Parts: sequence; C-alpha cells; structure tokens
Amino acid sequence: MADPRFYTRKSPLALAELLKVCGLSADEAHGEIQDVAAPENAGANDLVFIENAKYAEAVNASAAGFVLAKPELAGAIKNKIVIATPTPQLHFIAAIHLLYPAAQQPNLDDAKNISPRAAIGKNCNIHPTAVIGAGAEIGDHTVIGPHAVIGPGVKLGAHNDIGAGVTISHTITADHVRVLPGARIGQDGFGFVTNAQGQHIRMPQLGRVMIGAQTEIGANVAIDRGALADTAVGGNVIIDNLVQIAHNVVIGDGAILVSQSGVAGSSKIGKYAVLAAQAGVADHLDIGDFAQIGAQAGIMRDVDAKARIMGSPGQPVREYFRQVSMLAKLSKGTKTSS
Amino acid sequence: MADPRFYTRKSPLALAELLKVCGLSADEAHGEIQDVAAPENAGANDLVFIENAKYAEAVNASAAGFVLAKPELAGAIKNKIVIATPTPQLHFIAAIHLLYPAAQQPNLDDAKNISPRAAIGKNCNIHPTAVIGAGAEIGDHTVIGPHAVIGPGVKLGAHNDIGAGVTISHTITADHVRVLPGARIGQDGFGFVTNAQGQHIRMPQLGRVMIGAQTEIGANVAIDRGALADTAVGGNVIIDNLVQIAHNVVIGDGAILVSQSGVAGSSKIGKYAVLAAQAGVADHLDIGDFAQIGAQAGIMRDVDAKARIMGSPGQPVREYFRQVSMLAKLSKGTKTSS
Amino acid sequence: MADPRFYTRKSPLALAELLKVCGLSADEAHGEIQDVAAPENAGANDLVFIENAKYAEAVNASAAGFVLAKPELAGAIKNKIVIATPTPQLHFIAAIHLLYPAAQQPNLDDAKNISPRAAIGKNCNIHPTAVIGAGAEIGDHTVIGPHAVIGPGVKLGAHNDIGAGVTISHTITADHVRVLPGARIGQDGFGFVTNAQGQHIRMPQLGRVMIGAQTEIGANVAIDRGALADTAVGGNVIIDNLVQIAHNVVIGDGAILVSQSGVAGSSKIGKYAVLAAQAGVADHLDIGDFAQIGAQAGIMRDVDAKARIMGSPGQPVREYFRQVSMLAKLSKGTKTSS
Repeated sequence: MADPRFYTRKSPLALAELLKVCGLSADEAHGEIQDVAAPENAGANDLVFIENAKYAEAVNASAAGFVLAKPELAGAIKNKIVIATPTPQLHFIAAIHLLYPAAQQPNLDDAKNISPRAAIGKNCNIHPTAVIGAGAEIGDHTVIGPHAVIGPGVKLGAHNDIGAGVTISHTITADHVRVLPGARIGQDGFGFVTNAQGQHIRMPQLGRVMIGAQTEIGANVAIDRGALADTAVGGNVIIDNLVQIAHNVVIGDGAILVSQSGVAGSSKIGKYAVLAAQAGVADHLDIGDFAQIGAQAGIMRDVDAKARIMGSPGQPVREYFRQVSMLAKLSKGTKTSS
Repeated sequence: MADPRFYTRKSPLALAELLKVCGLSADEAHGEIQDVAAPENAGANDLVFIENAKYAEAVNASAAGFVLAKPELAGAIKNKIVIATPTPQLHFIAAIHLLYPAAQQPNLDDAKNISPRAAIGKNCNIHPTAVIGAGAEIGDHTVIGPHAVIGPGVKLGAHNDIGAGVTISHTITADHVRVLPGARIGQDGFGFVTNAQGQHIRMPQLGRVMIGAQTEIGANVAIDRGALADTAVGGNVIIDNLVQIAHNVVIGDGAILVSQSGVAGSSKIGKYAVLAAQAGVADHLDIGDFAQIGAQAGIMRDVDAKARIMGSPGQPVREYFRQVSMLAKLSKGTKTSS
Repeated sequence: MADPRFYTRKSPLALAELLKVCGLSADEAHGEIQDVAAPENAGANDLVFIENAKYAEAVNASAAGFVLAKPELAGAIKNKIVIATPTPQLHFIAAIHLLYPAAQQPNLDDAKNISPRAAIGKNCNIHPTAVIGAGAEIGDHTVIGPHAVIGPGVKLGAHNDIGAGVTISHTITADHVRVLPGARIGQDGFGFVTNAQGQHIRMPQLGRVMIGAQTEIGANVAIDRGALADTAVGGNVIIDNLVQIAHNVVIGDGAILVSQSGVAGSSKIGKYAVLAAQAGVADHLDIGDFAQIGAQAGIMRDVDAKARIMGSPGQPVREYFRQVSMLAKLSKGTKTSS
C-alpha cells in the first residue's frame, strides 16, 4: 500500500518471523504477510491491528488476512488469522520495521545537489543551491528557490513555485502550487505508542502528502505526511503562515486556513471552510463544507456545513455572543475576589 | 509606487488594453495608466479600485485618475475616469499583472551564491553558503549566517546579524537589526479575492518590509511584506519566536511581541505596547501606545493607549478577573451536565 | 560557569574596570571578578545581581563574592562586596560583555562546509550541503540532512537524525535524538532589560540546550538556550511541530508537547506531563508529573502532579466543564445585546 516512490518494501514477511521478533509463540504460525494496512484498504495477505471494540466490524468487513488483536477482542474476529496480544499496535510497528527496513530520513545523492536520477521538466528555474533527490520529478516551468530540499521520489506538478528554504518529502503536488519560504511538507506525523515501560515508540509513517492545483502554502507551515493513508490538501486551498496540519488530515477544495491555526490528526476540513487565525481543530473531527471557524476557536466536536462557530470550546456564533454578553452583564457590580 | 529596487514596472498601460484583458467594452476608452495605488498615495495617472461605499470619499479626495468601481458606486465617483464592473479588485489585479509582469519569486544569480551585482560593506562576515541576490546592499560589519537567503534589492543596515537559514526579500533594515534562525521576512502577504467561480485569485503584493534600528526578530517568525503600502516594524522592537506579522501591519518603536502571538493585516501596534504569548490581534485594529495585551488574549476591537487587556474576546483586565471570579463562584455547587 | 565549548571567557575582570565601564565610582574598588553567575551556582569570585528583596536570602546563602544590588537592597547583603546601583542587571550585562567579548553568532569555518576541526563519528551520513562548525562532535551513525547547520562546539550523540534545514547551536544531545526539518535549537533566549531611556538591552545568553535520549523534536520547533543555566529537555520526550520552548525551561522525561503549544521562560514540565495543542504555560511555573493540560489551555499557576487542567485561565477539568455547562444554561433565553 505504501507508495513505492517513497517506501521500499521487503515482502513477504513470514508470520513466524514476526511472532518471533515480537516474542510471541510461533509454534503453529503459518502464512506470509504481504503488507501492513488500515482495514479499509487491506488486501487478502495484509496485516491489520485492532485495540478497540468499535473497530471490530470494520476489521471483519475488511479483506485483511492477518489481525493483531487484544486478547479480549480476538474472539470477535472471524475468518482471519488472529494474533492475540496485549500490544497489537507495538507488534504492528514491528511488522512495519520488518517490511520497510529502510532509513527514515530520505537518502540524497552525495555527489551533486541535483540527483542525476531526478527528472527535471522544461523551462524550470532551479537554484543551484537547491537539493533534489533521486527519482524526483519536477514539472515544466517550476521554480525552486535557494536551499530548498526536494526529497527522493517527490513529484511536483507544472508551474509550481517553491520558496527558499522549503523542505518537501513524500509528497505529490498538482500544477500551480505555491509554497512560501520555510514550509515543511511531508515529514513524519506525530504517531507514537507508549509501551509498558513508558517508552514512546514511534509508529513509522508510510503515507504521503497530496496537494491539489492552485493551492498556496504559507511561510513556516508544517504539513505532516499520513500514517497509513495520505494527508490530502485539496485544490484552490489557501494556507497562511505558521499553520499546522497533522497526519491524515483531509482539506477540501477552496478551504482557507488563516495564520497559526492548526488541525489535529485525521480531521476533515470541508470545501470552502474557513479556519480563522489561531483556531484549533481536535483530531478525528469532521468540519462541514463552508463552515466558518472563528479566530482562536477550539473545536472539539463535528461542525455542520455552513455553521459559524466561535469560542473555546466552540459554539454557534449566536450562542457565543449571547454568553459573552450575559457574562458582561452579570459581572457588573460584582467585585474581583481572586 | 512600488519600490523599483524590488519591482520592475512596465508602464504606461493603455486603458483600452486593460479593458480588453478584463473582457470589458473598450470602445471609447482613452488614457494611459501609469501605476496602481491605494487612494491615499495615488497620482494623477494612477488606478485605484473601490468595492465599498465607505471609501468613496477617500477615492474622490485622491488624485487618482482611474477608478475601477462597482456599478452601484460608479455614480458617487466624481471627476475621474470610472470603469464600472462587478469585480473591481479582480480587474485591479489584472492591471498589476500587466504593469508588473515579472516573476513573483526573486531571481537569484545562478553562477554564484553572492551576486557580483550585490554591494557588500566593510568587515562583513558572510558565510559562503549564504545566497545574496543582485542589487542587494549589505551594510558594514553585518554578519550573515549559513544558508541565509538575501533576495535581490534587499538593503541591510550596518551591524545586522542575520541567523542561519533566514530568508529575507523585499526588505530594508536599519542598523543593528538581529534576525534569529529560520525567520521569514518579506514573502507575499495573505491577499486573495475569490471570483465568481470560487477561485481564490492572488492579489500580487507590491510593498516592502521596513525594519527599524536595534530591532530583534525571533526564530521561525513570519513577517509578510505589504500589499500596496509597506509592513513597518519600528526600532527597538523585540519579536519573539514563531510570531506572525501580516501584511501592512505597523509596529511602533519599543513594542514587544512575545512568542506565538500574531497580528492580522493592516493592524497597528502602538509604541511600547506588549503582546503576550499566543495573543492575537484581528485585522485593521489600532492598539494604543503602552497597551498590554495578555497571553492568549483575542483582540477584536481597538485598544486604548495604556489599556491592559486579557481574555478572548479581550476585556479590560479588571473586568476579565471579575468575570473569571464570578464564574467560579456561580458554578460552585452546580453539576456538570454535558 | 558558561560551557567553554560554546563561550570563551576572558577573565579575571578587575572590579575597577567594570565600575568604570558602568560609570560608577571606582575609587576604592578592589578585587577581580572571575565570572558571572546565578546565586545558586556562584563561586567565591563570581558576580551576581539582585533587584528584588525576595532573593536576598539566596544571595546571602550563595558563595558569590560580588553583588550588584539596588541601593535599597544593599544593606541586606552581608559579607560580600556590594556595588549599589539603580540598575544592577544592566551592569551585570556590562560585566558579561567584558567577560565574554566574542561575537554572538557562531563563527563557522569559511573554507569548507564541514570544519576540519569537527569530530565526525563512524558511519555517519552527513549531507554535503550541511554545515558543521569547529569543535563540533558528531556521534556514530548520526544522519545530518541537507542544509542543516550544526554550530561550533555542538555535541550530538550517536544515532541522531537531524532533518533538512535544521539549525542547532550551543546544544548537547544524547543518543537517538531525532529533529525534524526546520527546527531551531540553541538560539538566544528572549532576555532583555529596559533601561531608563526605554531601550531594550539584550541580556547575553550563556547557557546551553541539553536534550535527552530518544527524544523527538518536530518541524519548525523553537528551543532557546538558557540564560545562565541550561534549557533542559529530558529523554523520551515528544515535541510536535511549531512548539515554543523558552530559555531555562526544564522538561521531564516522557513528556509530550503537542503542536503549537508553548512554555515560557524557566517553567518546569513534569515527567510524562502532556501539553495538548496550542496550550500555553506562563513563566516560572511548575507543572507536576503526569499532569494533563488541555488544548488551548492557558496556565498561570503551578499545576499539581496528575492534575487535569482545561481552559484559559486553566482550571481543573471538572470545574471547567461545570462552568461551560452552567454558562450554556444561563444564556438560554437571553438575547445578544452587543
């Protein structure tokens, strides 16, 4: 599932080997794992994991052949090879390391700034201090500024304009994308599992960042790549400076994210939705199309299409002003006691 | 009006040509446009636009010879050549592209990191990996760190200290300015007009960033250049890490902006005003001299000189603590119902 | 006290010279100052300063031989050479400039990207565009990405992974530290004293950044080095993108700082404490072990171990939800009046 442009897979992985690495009994283990996957994308020889009962249905509905499951969930999984363990995700991580053993940091050719194995389009303007990795493809008429770093396999569309000091890895862009100086696109998302010893174990991130046409990304923005799926920014999106976009976020066409706002992992921002400055959206939420989130708002629940939300925690804009107004009235005549 | 250090103008622009590009009737169009401008700075042959009735007086008072105006506002404009259109700003943008056809990203000389057409002062210490564009002027005793990028035409005063990985374009600094690593100064501001098809059309930014003496700019800060006027940071200003300063913002001498605070477009921060950490100021506001804005405060209205404001939305500090205290009292004994 | 890896001291400094530079009477001044220090670390020939009566005890308990003190505090200091002045910290800064006269920006060797005086470990993978200063030590198996800048004297442990465009100065890391692209580590903290003329005078920062094993630092993060002591990040710490960590902050092992959160100067974050996204902690606070600070929370007081805090100003999570719920009830049926 991981895009071979960016990730080199070494498969199959014998189930017995995985169990051995994980310190699990491998006496009767048979079968070969082709890949790791999320349930919705898994193939017949793929490995998934489950730690929460609410995903049992999705796992059963998936084509996945192998399931790492907490012991109390193992019975709920039907017609698959189930590996019961108290730490399914930690073992899933072990499987990733076995299937994708390569270094995490992109390898860049040593000899030259621009790899001879990169494909550069026509009429590009690439500053000689920019670094471009092997297998990268740069579209026609694209401009790349000084000290920008384009990682191996990255594919930039035509008429892209990549500013000075930008770093891009694990990313595919459409045409007419602009990236202002210092933006960071495609680095690892924030994914960790804490083991019994209290160590935070990194979940290797195997996804990409996809960026649509005519989209603009501001200075010093950070957009992390996806974990198993992709982080996807639509077309005609405007992202202001210092915005944070976490892994697996999906941003609809025409959305606007104003400066210093942030979107946590796996949340979905609807088409033409607006996040005003310093607003934050928690993880796994759905912000409807054309929704407007006010400055400094803190969103902890889904937001309907066209809704206008303000405040932290976020509320409908009328309710927000009603509360602000009521508070002001109530406090009149009272004294400060703290 | 745009500083020829940074922008190359191709004028005059025949009114008939502009109308043709905009798809407007050009049958009786005469005259030549010299430049685009904001009303307050327009000359007799300059083009301005108006989309809001409240600016009609300013447009009439200006010297501008040409006005793009919404049809309903066209009648209010006196003694000027008026081009009535439902989309004045979009046509204004078209005029900018015709008058300033150059590439948006600074061109940097290919052959060498330091352009032979840059003027370097005495006793400078410029790291050989820094990039300096044509026409840049670097003052005496200025230090420029590794991988810094100084765009074409940028003028740095004496005794500047520019950190590693900083990018500066379209900017003029006074003496003794310090910029810490990764700060981004002079990139495009966040200016867009959305057309009838829902496309966000970029408004080319023709201004500069001006930075006063003894000012310090923190790591990974973003300061956008002005749209038609300049973004202006005074002298003796202290800007902490990760601060956002939008286009056309004006910051008074001695002001302090603490980490992760942000100022939206065209707002004015008074002398010695303080924005504490993570505070935000909305656009087009006036924050008085010596005002103190608390951490995480959200400012949506003008603030008087010497006022002390806290909270989001921002309130006088006494009122803020009164409300916090009242809320705490009221909620005692109540139960959580959500 | 300042680490000679990073700071070159020129001592002793004759007390008479300091007084002369400060414009103070030096008639009977004798003695030689070896160093500047905070009271808790001062040696017998070191200089400290005091501007607040609450530190008188600490100054008296210290070994410091020389004390710059406000006139009204001078009498409270026993058995030390006391220099009474209305501006102790400004004169302390003068002493720092005399004792540590070197340039503030790291000098990097001109001739080559990697200084011949740096010590590079075995099996390192250092991109040829990276810059490494004199006296730096790079541990075995460490990877350094394109355009990264490792300042003079910086010591990186084994198996570090330093991303593209990262800048690190005045820092010592343990093993297995990862730093994502564009992070800024070790630059000057935000330390200023405002003199009688309203000028903000920089307090030279003489500390370091210490980073523990297995710690990860996100994209475009800023971690300032200490003023007199160090900024210390523990081991097994996870710092997400765009986080701000001010000078002298101490972060306990296993703590997690989510994206766009910030910690002001000298605050201490306990072991396994969590700061959710966009949360802020004011200066000089103590956040207990395992405390959980909610998204966008604003912390202005110490937080107990294991406490769960939400809101701005921060409150226990139950109280927070009680207030949110009460406000919603109270405002029902009221009308907006603003």
